Amino acid sequence: MNVVPTSENGSPPVYREIAEELRGQIRSGRYADGDRLPGENTLMERHGVARATARQALSVLINEGLAVAVRGSGIYVRLFRPVRRHGARRLSKELWGQGRAIWQTDGEERGYEVDGLCVDETVADGHVARALGLAEGGGVLRRSRRYLVEGRPVQRAVSYLPLTVLVDSAAARRVREHDSGPGGIYARLAELGQAPAHFTEEIRVRMPTPEESQELRLAPGTPVLEVARTALTSEHRPVEFNEITMDGSAYVLQYDFDA
Amino acid sequence: MNVVPTSENGSPPVYREIAEELRGQIRSGRYADGDRLPGENTLMERHGVARATARQALSVLINEGLAVAVRGSGIYVRLFRPVRRHGARRLSKELWGQGRAIWQTDGEERGYEVDGLCVDETVADGHVARALGLAEGGGVLRRSRRYLVEGRPVQRAVSYLPLTVLVDSAAARRVREHDSGPGGIYARLAELGQAPAHFTEEIRVRMPTPEESQELRLAPGTPVLEVARTALTSEHRPVEFNEITMDGSAYVLQYDFDA
Repeated sequence: MNVVPTSENGSPPVYREIAEELRGQIRSGRYADGDRLPGENTLMERHGVARATARQALSVLINEGLAVAVRGSGIYVRLFRPVRRHGARRLSKELWGQGRAIWQTDGEERGYEVDGLCVDETVADGHVARALGLAEGGGVLRRSRRYLVEGRPVQRAVSYLPLTVLVDSAAARRVREHDSGPGGIYARLAELGQAPAHFTEEIRVRMPTPEESQELRLAPGTPVLEVARTALTSEHRPVEFNEITMDGSAYVLQYDFDA
Repeated sequence: MNVVPTSENGSPPVYREIAEELRGQIRSGRYADGDRLPGENTLMERHGVARATARQALSVLINEGLAVAVRGSGIYVRLFRPVRRHGARRLSKELWGQGRAIWQTDGEERGYEVDGLCVDETVADGHVARALGLAEGGGVLRRSRRYLVEGRPVQRAVSYLPLTVLVDSAAARRVREHDSGPGGIYARLAELGQAPAHFTEEIRVRMPTPEESQELRLAPGTPVLEVARTALTSEHRPVEFNEITMDGSAYVLQYDFDA
């Protein structure tokens, strides 16, 4: 529950006001990435508050992911520049057709890693079956992995492909391997005669489950973005459904389109 | 702060487990919109818990907006079908060129209202100036309004237009009125020779401010979606910047595009 606490007279408690002031100074650049924030003693003196109040104010910023405590040294500003994810540009055929990974456009010059990769076969349940136009219980290949940028986990993506599409071939075998090869699964689908031509992305937002909080190392009070993408062939047959759960504080999603 | 409470052994407390079970039964359709949920007595008996625990479980669902208490009667499932907002389709020239309101595609067959409309002149600050390519302090017309669907507030939209675009004319005068006329401000911009041809939408997510919680009547723990849209002419000159703050639980954003 995210109830904003108020003091008896209805105004926010003092520790929140101090946190808000520091937050404003971080946003305005008065304290930049890596700067040391005023410590408990400074805040106590400056605002005439008890140590517990000063500590609470600093912990708000730490919980929001705007600051980190360095043991024995102090509290430092730690800003993470959100990943800008371009809806259409990153999925253009030119990109995966040239054997590039979709993530090369998101990570820009920033390092990214993949871990927790898991490839298995399963059956499509309710919404996955609907998205892929399969009967309930239809077989799918599931590829699940976590992405990290600058060492910070930013998303978990779980991709489903109908087994009926993966007819025996080198491309179909490669899709089942951990490294799905140059251009990734979209390039393999093209080799199978099932090149994605259209995409639909649905965006929802919600608070995370405890498991998601842990896996994405979310600061308390951080929502997740859910992007559900369906890839369709030129005949509008669905060939992939991808459920992506993102750290909401780590992303800006961008979509460009014409009138 | 959205700390998920855990009991001493690290598992979620019983009231959360009960809430999770009821939530699952609502999602699966076992309890449909308008159905009465099991009351405190039933939950106490069924789960062998104290009244306070049963009450806490039900209050989780109420806080999430999945249920409402009807005084003297019980707790009822109250589902709000999210508004599906089609990124590109709703902004197509055919639509506003025909004098239709953009909201007619979102509200579908559902009633929507606008309130809290406010039109004034102001100066563009940091990010608004940047989005519109204006010098800091450049003059803008600001149009702000709240939208409601089925009586529920779902978003606040604040639109900014550079005053330099609004050269004296019937269309420019109409943009300053509460009712901006058939097809809205995009139709008026077209009459001014500044028809929007391209759009960029940026999506961010965060927890609401106390003012936003109040204005959008957000259940505790509900994040907001921020959509920042820039409308550009065919020469890529920005002619409008629109900041939309949405109840995150009331929307599904959809974007369709080609590979």
